[in-house]
Amino acid sequence: MTSRYVIISADGHCGLPLRDYAAYLDPGFRQQFDDWATEKEAQRQLKLESNFEYIMGWETSNAEGLRGAYDPVTRDKELDADGVSADVLFADADAVTGMGSPPFDAGLAAGMIVDADLAFAGARAHNRFLAELCSVSPERRAGIALIPLCHDPVRAVEEAEWAAEQPGIRGVMIPTMWRDRPPYSSEVYEPFWAACAAANLPVHTHSGEAPHEDYNDHLGIYLAEVVWWAARPSWHLLFSGAFERHPNLKFVVTEAAAYWIADAKWKWDQYMGGGHTTKKMAALLQGKISKLPSEYFGTNIFAGASTMSKEELRRRHVLGLDAVMWGTDYPHPEGSWPNTAAKLKKDFFDIPVAETEMIVGGVAANVYGFDLAELQPIANRIGFSPEDLGQDVSLEANPHADAEAKWWLSDYGITPTRK
Amino acid sequence: MTSRYVIISADGHCGLPLRDYAAYLDPGFRQQFDDWATEKEAQRQLKLESNFEYIMGWETSNAEGLRGAYDPVTRDKELDADGVSADVLFADADAVTGMGSPPFDAGLAAGMIVDADLAFAGARAHNRFLAELCSVSPERRAGIALIPLCHDPVRAVEEAEWAAEQPGIRGVMIPTMWRDRPPYSSEVYEPFWAACAAANLPVHTHSGEAPHEDYNDHLGIYLAEVVWWAARPSWHLLFSGAFERHPNLKFVVTEAAAYWIADAKWKWDQYMGGGHTTKKMAALLQGKISKLPSEYFGTNIFAGASTMSKEELRRRHVLGLDAVMWGTDYPHPEGSWPNTAAKLKKDFFDIPVAETEMIVGGVAANVYGFDLAELQPIANRIGFSPEDLGQDVSLEANPHADAEAKWWLSDYGITPTRK
Repeated sequence: MTSRYVIISADGHCGLPLRDYAAYLDPGFRQQFDDWATEKEAQRQLKLESNFEYIMGWETSNAEGLRGAYDPVTRDKELDADGVSADVLFADADAVTGMGSPPFDAGLAAGMIVDADLAFAGARAHNRFLAELCSVSPERRAGIALIPLCHDPVRAVEEAEWAAEQPGIRGVMIPTMWRDRPPYSSEVYEPFWAACAAANLPVHTHSGEAPHEDYNDHLGIYLAEVVWWAARPSWHLLFSGAFERHPNLKFVVTEAAAYWIADAKWKWDQYMGGGHTTKKMAALLQGKISKLPSEYFGTNIFAGASTMSKEELRRRHVLGLDAVMWGTDYPHPEGSWPNTAAKLKKDFFDIPVAETEMIVGGVAANVYGFDLAELQPIANRIGFSPEDLGQDVSLEANPHADAEAKWWLSDYGITPTRK
Repeated sequence: MTSRYVIISADGHCGLPLRDYAAYLDPGFRQQFDDWATEKEAQRQLKLESNFEYIMGWETSNAEGLRGAYDPVTRDKELDADGVSADVLFADADAVTGMGSPPFDAGLAAGMIVDADLAFAGARAHNRFLAELCSVSPERRAGIALIPLCHDPVRAVEEAEWAAEQPGIRGVMIPTMWRDRPPYSSEVYEPFWAACAAANLPVHTHSGEAPHEDYNDHLGIYLAEVVWWAARPSWHLLFSGAFERHPNLKFVVTEAAAYWIADAKWKWDQYMGGGHTTKKMAALLQGKISKLPSEYFGTNIFAGASTMSKEELRRRHVLGLDAVMWGTDYPHPEGSWPNTAAKLKKDFFDIPVAETEMIVGGVAANVYGFDLAELQPIANRIGFSPEDLGQDVSLEANPHADAEAKWWLSDYGITPTRK
């Protein structure tokens, strides 16, 4: 038997039952918190009225497992049962009725908050809880602290520095949308990128927020755009030179799929000098970044792609085996939990072992600094073997496949800068 | 010898020398026009100071051909020399220093205008000129009238009705960005979509505008986003049901490439019911549109893809042979003019004749209502044969290739609604 996969889920969620956040909140915000929580509970009622059976079915049949959103012992048990050695913990545990959100919705929709003080108070309450949760089995956790960066770049640096001190916190999440505040290409954020690079804290956006005011309640428009809004900050950092000034800075786009990286690599490389149509542009770009845009994926830009589609796995060499990370999205219903074994078997049966290792854990170990030597014994106890996933262990990976997949370099006569 | 291709360039530009627009402008706007023109000329000076050799080189070596931006006899001569039977005429003839823009920049950047009166005055001036230009050889022209829709939906309907009466005007262009005005999914635009559908006027966006205020002068960010902003209205119309209410309504995204249609078709179809991750969403969507999103391409949504990349031609069956239109971008320097023969030969040599016919002219004939019987004699006189493009005329097209290219239908078990 070959060894079992160290699966690190790059997309998981945690959060206290709504009212329990009160204990973690600075006392001055209690009244506003009560008002906010009352409103959230009213929203849940509305959802229950329109979708009672689905909601109750989900909550009842997963009652015990959903407690892993805040209880570390339960979380470890659920990870174990799902074959997952470690996971990355974002906010907003309850994707169904919003009962696991940080105060003032300072999680996945933090850009919508108007008052910076509320944004930071909510984030801080969650971060305190997160540090506590991640202090149990810290070797299995990458807590992602909430930092309402665009609401106040100066306080954001302080919060990042605090986060860097907490065992089990291994990254930070910023609002997906800056809205009417300075865009992430602005110089006001430079000290924050510097602080995150210095503390080795990968910066994240996570899909969810979008300009709903443009959608007139048309869900299809939201679905057609939500990935783009989450991914957008990645190219704002890239083309404003943030990774050039901070070669150590990592940016992760989570639960926003990975398929878009294929066309992004092609088009962005082309803008740097490929072809007649962009000739007049290329000269202006080449001074800003020193590598091809595609070469920042896997060193600076990553995708926490959650439960990837078969197509994204087929595209894995274009996306880059060094850039994409699988995840269960536990405990959200759209993820693979509690049936991760079946999902992995269905999607990975024809992927070589060495490539599977990278996608389900190797890249995440690199991004978040997990100690694989600590995790392998856990995997040996609870994890899946290649045989469990129906894989043919004799199937060889081509070590040059990622480089060879960049068809556009030869199409446009572009020379890679990486050796 | 097989017959020559009727090439209809789906992307061309026209425009008067800046000051000459004065004669087409309502008299009340003359002073504002003078101020605007003086500012534009100052901008040209700045561009000349930073890029003198390139600008003078382009303008000097193409002096005669550039007059085709406003002189119909010259335009026909340039189309002839380029092997092009007909073309689609957008505003903003001068992509180098902006000396062919409609008053108040009411063309490709119309969304940025603040005063609705200026937007309509500039559009109207251009439309009058356009009608005049297109009245010569109207069988070879599809003039695209400027309609500042989001600035005033009521006046927009009047302008569309006027445009529909002009020989040679065969479409309208709306601002790419609505900015702080109602989004295109809003009901306030319903009478406009109805008017365009009734008059058989395809509605266009054309790439160019983007939220520059977010870019801090980082050109790479602009390049990474400009296609998205131009394409964005297409899914706002689709998912708000505009094509459902107006099955005859056509929307064309011009000079914003076509590659993005591949992932759009896949993902949008998936949202309608494919796969576990979107199950909770699908039910909410299915009431809004009656076909799969991919099925609106080629009947309602089209791409005026300009000089397509080899990759987009390789993807032609996924994009849809009924949905993409080639174009020269005459008289812009990033296009194929005046070397269209060489460009076509380089990119189409391995494409079957029947498929080439669709991409270089057949789809445009359908979208704009060109009379191929009128154009074929012109093509016979000035056009290219398959042999001219180095094509093997015995190469057979697979008539089922477009349908077979939708791999995601089988991946997700989605049933097409089209017979």
